[in-house]
Amino acid sequence: MNFLEEKILRDGVIKEGNILKVDSFLNHQIDIDIMRQMAYEFKRRFRGVNVNKVLTIEASGIAIATLLGDLYDVPVVFAKKSQTANSTDDKYVSQAYSFTHKKMNNVFISKPYLSATDEVLIVDDFLADGQAAHALIDLVHQAGAKVAGIGIAIEKGQQKGGSILRSEGYMVESIAIIESMDWEKQTIKFRNQPEKPLGDTNLTQG
Amino acid sequence: MNFLEEKILRDGVIKEGNILKVDSFLNHQIDIDIMRQMAYEFKRRFRGVNVNKVLTIEASGIAIATLLGDLYDVPVVFAKKSQTANSTDDKYVSQAYSFTHKKMNNVFISKPYLSATDEVLIVDDFLADGQAAHALIDLVHQAGAKVAGIGIAIEKGQQKGGSILRSEGYMVESIAIIESMDWEKQTIKFRNQPEKPLGDTNLTQG
Repeated sequence: MNFLEEKILRDGVIKEGNILKVDSFLNHQIDIDIMRQMAYEFKRRFRGVNVNKVLTIEASGIAIATLLGDLYDVPVVFAKKSQTANSTDDKYVSQAYSFTHKKMNNVFISKPYLSATDEVLIVDDFLADGQAAHALIDLVHQAGAKVAGIGIAIEKGQQKGGSILRSEGYMVESIAIIESMDWEKQTIKFRNQPEKPLGDTNLTQG
Repeated sequence: MNFLEEKILRDGVIKEGNILKVDSFLNHQIDIDIMRQMAYEFKRRFRGVNVNKVLTIEASGIAIATLLGDLYDVPVVFAKKSQTANSTDDKYVSQAYSFTHKKMNNVFISKPYLSATDEVLIVDDFLADGQAAHALIDLVHQAGAKVAGIGIAIEKGQQKGGSILRSEGYMVESIAIIESMDWEKQTIKFRNQPEKPLGDTNLTQG
């Protein structure tokens, strides 16, 4: 079991309706040690992949994106959400349905901050149905840029986002993949992810 | 002139209506070098001040709060905004008017993430009328915690937030304070901030 899976078992809370609350360390209060370890783990898993920009979506992806940008020493961009349709002259605009808030959001990036030469590592805290990830991919493609990979903290393996993205050919690396959760027993089963022999374990020591 | 003032002059854009756009490096695309320098500069200015938590408000304060939390090695909390009035049983709730979006927001923090023993450094990207800062202070006080200080990237010196907060006795450190802006000439005048003899310049070398 890796550090994030252990942290989820220790501090995550399963709520009725297949909801995992991790706001004590991931998306409200931020455990800096866990975030730092996630940044190193993404860098390890995406070893050999060229990255010159880290992209996420506001708000809870910003912390991990910032530490990852710090590690790669590349700019970070966070896509913004808005319910109102803005002028698209100076923006790339896509849409994503938020299951949490039960509404459709416009997701946008000002055009100067994505360009055709960018190799973009997309990161986010959660992957479920892949709505946010697909909106970000759409924005990257509108700019003529390349998706270098997709790094996710927690993937909900029962939902279809991860398998769709992988079938589309994207390199998706999720640090923890939840195979199933049991609310009554408060148990979580993670998908077994065989350790890849990347041979660069020193990275995690900074 | 310090690094942030220089960056603002180089890459900031003055828009009609006293608006300064810094989204190429601060609140849409994030320049990691500038963010890192800001984190070191806050740590330098708040030297000798006990801090065991960094607090900001979503979304654009999260990047600087994360790097500062990384530097202090303390947890980061970001207050969330919501237009709907939530149950307050498990949350501290305050209000802040957003001049950008011309609406009143509820600002809240789940109660477990602020406690009476916390010494909280509040950070944000902008300080204008002080609505967000006062909401965050209110949340800290509701928890019985202490405001250790307030760190701001860019203060709009013509607006009243900074002077009110200082008159209330808070230690407010703004890396750049804009005294005046001229849209037609595209010029910015910064308030002169005498270098304080903190004697710990090595901090900026990490």
